[in-house]
Amino acid sequence: MSETQLHIRDDLKDLTSFEGINSDLAEIFKFMLEAKKLKGVTRQCYNLQEQRFENSAEHSWHVLLFAIVMEKYANEDIDMLKVLKMIALHDLGEIDDGDTFFYDKDVEATLKKEEACLDRLFAGFDEGLRGELKALWLEFEEGESAEAKYAQALDRFQPFLYMLKNSGESWRRYKLTRPKVLKTNAMMESGSNPLWDAYQILTKQAEDAGYFYED
Amino acid sequence: MSETQLHIRDDLKDLTSFEGINSDLAEIFKFMLEAKKLKGVTRQCYNLQEQRFENSAEHSWHVLLFAIVMEKYANEDIDMLKVLKMIALHDLGEIDDGDTFFYDKDVEATLKKEEACLDRLFAGFDEGLRGELKALWLEFEEGESAEAKYAQALDRFQPFLYMLKNSGESWRRYKLTRPKVLKTNAMMESGSNPLWDAYQILTKQAEDAGYFYED
Repeated sequence: MSETQLHIRDDLKDLTSFEGINSDLAEIFKFMLEAKKLKGVTRQCYNLQEQRFENSAEHSWHVLLFAIVMEKYANEDIDMLKVLKMIALHDLGEIDDGDTFFYDKDVEATLKKEEACLDRLFAGFDEGLRGELKALWLEFEEGESAEAKYAQALDRFQPFLYMLKNSGESWRRYKLTRPKVLKTNAMMESGSNPLWDAYQILTKQAEDAGYFYED
Repeated sequence: MSETQLHIRDDLKDLTSFEGINSDLAEIFKFMLEAKKLKGVTRQCYNLQEQRFENSAEHSWHVLLFAIVMEKYANEDIDMLKVLKMIALHDLGEIDDGDTFFYDKDVEATLKKEEACLDRLFAGFDEGLRGELKALWLEFEEGESAEAKYAQALDRFQPFLYMLKNSGESWRRYKLTRPKVLKTNAMMESGSNPLWDAYQILTKQAEDAGYFYED
């Protein structure tokens, strides 16, 4: 549909101050409108089919789905509800400053900025909800619990599915070799041994086929 | 980033037959590559900020997040894990035939097409997983359980958040009046009374402000 068929009007009163409704619900709606901005946060995975980069909102959904269908391949017994909540939240901190490609990541600085973003996003929630969400996000980032390890493994493997469809486009664009990629993603093993095994086999095939940067 | 900076090559061997790995995992990866297509299914909600329509993958994530922060507003005690799984899955059936705007929906025909799509997508899974996912999708569509009612209410309310940011663009484009919109979304009440109350108040404000089509 072309832009000209849209029925946009910019002269109408803005209603997003949510006057006249329960103030707690109003804060949830405001949060949802802020969270919506994750749809505009661009990642480094190029989707050949749609000819555009993936955004962090659709990435989050794709990893969520992955977690559901991969449950039996988790290394430990996991609380799947916690896993799904973690994944839904894990990229929200990118809203203020964008996605950081994890090969370039200054972990400390990124974490600090993302935490500030979350504090802003969650500010209107009651203490219970704010505490729960913040704790889930931190648990994912720390990567220590069985749930966080599993969720992180899937978060790392998911972009690889793009690489298989675009023949490793961003590996070559970022001059990444297979050893570098394996090293950066080795934590996958602690979440799911079978996933890590498959990753090693498939990246070897990708290397043989010329997907990686060769220095 | 412009298209020309991409490092695309179309002469490299396709590896998505997943030879040499556990065949059950291979089926999961194939499913994930099919599911990825939901990122290309366009909905009717126009996002002014990104100047494009929302897609069903990012919509699914946004509704899921909504479910997490709205838990206390569900009418009944709900199994949140079931809710989150349902929401993650609920639009997968659109992959083969696209999204149907729910004001236009021939419910029976749409359901049949979407079910066929799911059967195709889940075909490689073992019977246990296939059965669980299919049952969750059907439960959502039937809208009878407490979890389905809650999930459906959020699925209906979420596009309204777009309307508030684009001043009701698709209401006018589709010639929708407030009475028609209220009637189509009345099932929201059975999932969350407070959400339905807020919807009535806010759509009244929207009507007064000129967001709706006026016949």
